[in-house]
Amino acid sequence: MLTISYKSAMNTSGHKQLVNVRLSDDRNSVVIIDQTKLPNSLEYVTISTAEELYDAIRELKVRGAPAIGICAAFGMYCIAQKIEAADYQEFYGRFVEQKNYINSSRPTAVNLSWALNRMEAVVVRNREKPVHEIVRLLGEECAKIRDEDIAMCYAISEYGLSLIKDGDGILTHCNAGPLATSCYGTAIGPLILGKERGINFRVFADETRPLLQGARLTTYELMNAGIDVTLICDNMASIVMKNGWIQACFVGCDRVAANGDVANKIGTSGVAILAKYYNIPFYVLGPTSTIDMNCKTGADIKIELRPPEEITSRFYREPMAPENVKCYNPAFDVTDHSLITGIVTEKGICRPPYDVSIASLFKKADGK
Amino acid sequence: MLTISYKSAMNTSGHKQLVNVRLSDDRNSVVIIDQTKLPNSLEYVTISTAEELYDAIRELKVRGAPAIGICAAFGMYCIAQKIEAADYQEFYGRFVEQKNYINSSRPTAVNLSWALNRMEAVVVRNREKPVHEIVRLLGEECAKIRDEDIAMCYAISEYGLSLIKDGDGILTHCNAGPLATSCYGTAIGPLILGKERGINFRVFADETRPLLQGARLTTYELMNAGIDVTLICDNMASIVMKNGWIQACFVGCDRVAANGDVANKIGTSGVAILAKYYNIPFYVLGPTSTIDMNCKTGADIKIELRPPEEITSRFYREPMAPENVKCYNPAFDVTDHSLITGIVTEKGICRPPYDVSIASLFKKADGK
Repeated sequence: MLTISYKSAMNTSGHKQLVNVRLSDDRNSVVIIDQTKLPNSLEYVTISTAEELYDAIRELKVRGAPAIGICAAFGMYCIAQKIEAADYQEFYGRFVEQKNYINSSRPTAVNLSWALNRMEAVVVRNREKPVHEIVRLLGEECAKIRDEDIAMCYAISEYGLSLIKDGDGILTHCNAGPLATSCYGTAIGPLILGKERGINFRVFADETRPLLQGARLTTYELMNAGIDVTLICDNMASIVMKNGWIQACFVGCDRVAANGDVANKIGTSGVAILAKYYNIPFYVLGPTSTIDMNCKTGADIKIELRPPEEITSRFYREPMAPENVKCYNPAFDVTDHSLITGIVTEKGICRPPYDVSIASLFKKADGK
Repeated sequence: MLTISYKSAMNTSGHKQLVNVRLSDDRNSVVIIDQTKLPNSLEYVTISTAEELYDAIRELKVRGAPAIGICAAFGMYCIAQKIEAADYQEFYGRFVEQKNYINSSRPTAVNLSWALNRMEAVVVRNREKPVHEIVRLLGEECAKIRDEDIAMCYAISEYGLSLIKDGDGILTHCNAGPLATSCYGTAIGPLILGKERGINFRVFADETRPLLQGARLTTYELMNAGIDVTLICDNMASIVMKNGWIQACFVGCDRVAANGDVANKIGTSGVAILAKYYNIPFYVLGPTSTIDMNCKTGADIKIELRPPEEITSRFYREPMAPENVKCYNPAFDVTDHSLITGIVTEKGICRPPYDVSIASLFKKADGK
């Protein structure tokens, strides 16, 4: 596995990095980009208390599973600094109380509890040490969580970059860029890394209805990185491919089954079918932590249904469909593994047959 | 060819008919439903001048190829009434000037120029008659265009209905219902005609970004006709097909090439590719007047590009993409004939090979 520190990742960059989540200079608060204000304004929010942290996660000021995990870890470090406790027991009690509160902000985001549990483990593991030393070690741990995410994104970006060449047109769907992670991102990472190295791409970003993550966030990230991006409606992917403008599709993933079926933002499967029809390679990019070996196939993945208002009225000045119209609003769909050219992880690129290539990723990880 | 008059079509209906385009009672202006105001309010606009007519077509207050043709014909009749001319030559000169102006309002819809040319032919054919008589004949011609459209919609609806059965799920894209035509519509016609006969369908309507004709108009028409309709975002067509909910796709058309390639609302080609992948029949419904034998293939069809604001900010409370983001906003795309199961016209259903079946339509019409 590649190791690359936060500082060196920052320094290799010629463009403006979007630093989504960071500690303040005096290291006792967390500074995040308020993603609910994008793309109309770039505003930073400073988080000093558990209540502010809970609110930021709950209200989607910070979003994207890796970014939420990093933010929660930084937040717990800042909260721990402020705990006044006579002894370890009192410190630990207050720490767990705050951790459980933060964990309840978005109970379904797996990275949130994963990061909080890592922070708690530091406290437990160092119970014999003085509290001020435990707090210092918490500071190390949250930086480590962030640095691991950077290294993961960097490795995915490096592998992804090997699949495309200067001048290629890339179609992406939804948002899997720096705003959802520490930096670089997953699906967007290769494009930003390429740009840093003087390799230019022409990106087409699906707006991604109904919540418009592509329009609001992906275009913002790419423009910020100086990358040539064109926004299209989801239903324009076919004509853009037909025009010969797309040499590869790059998308993120929310869950990958053991056979290579991929759950990702609604519409991803449609893009994959179009890519197949037009003979364009279709790549899924994400960390091995999104591979769920307990899901044999995509049929095991439960699809979240969201409220009709997201389709009929959210973001609009007035409702754009008749009152009480019936809607079907799944948040994700499953792309069949037969449509996927490759799955790009921080440990390498899986190719068909996926049951074999995915299993071998984990064998390598186990040192077998 | 079936003949059915305007009045009788209205009377056979048990449901509330939407009358989209009509002459005012004093026959010197055109009254249209302002489709940009639907579904929140049903407002009528009165058109008396060439400028108002140009604006209504350009701004999509009236839309749908047949409805545009009817509106333009009615409009030219009203404009002709107001032309002050000393002689035929002056009348004809002013008529053609206005006609060319109206014809420039939207490039892709063939019905616009087709209807305008029919009106001009009346003027030319009757050059020996007094101007007031020519104007009277223009009034007859535009009513004839409208009545032919009603008969055409009815025949298409009848043929289309033969392709589906009670309980079927139908996916449609954009709007090709009564609001796009005189009544019934083309793609939606079979569903409304079926409903009148007690046959029930379950319709899935793509919202159809960026102008949301599916969300705003198709759902409105279908709910108005008492038909079970579910609104989805365009990028949900794939999951709905995968769920097994769709037995046929019905779409309209803006221009059909001699080889069966079809220009229709942006996104149609994507739906056709998905339907092919999921083995679902894909039907295009439209009058023979949308077949353009001068277009050998879809490559000859010019695609209208529309402004980026339609994607970034139209309908929204605030812009949903960064300022100055580049957009690609084609209004139509071309669906390859190889993806189309049948083209349903008022003269029957064309099947592949389309070069043969389409040519034979016109041979029949020519009495050969």
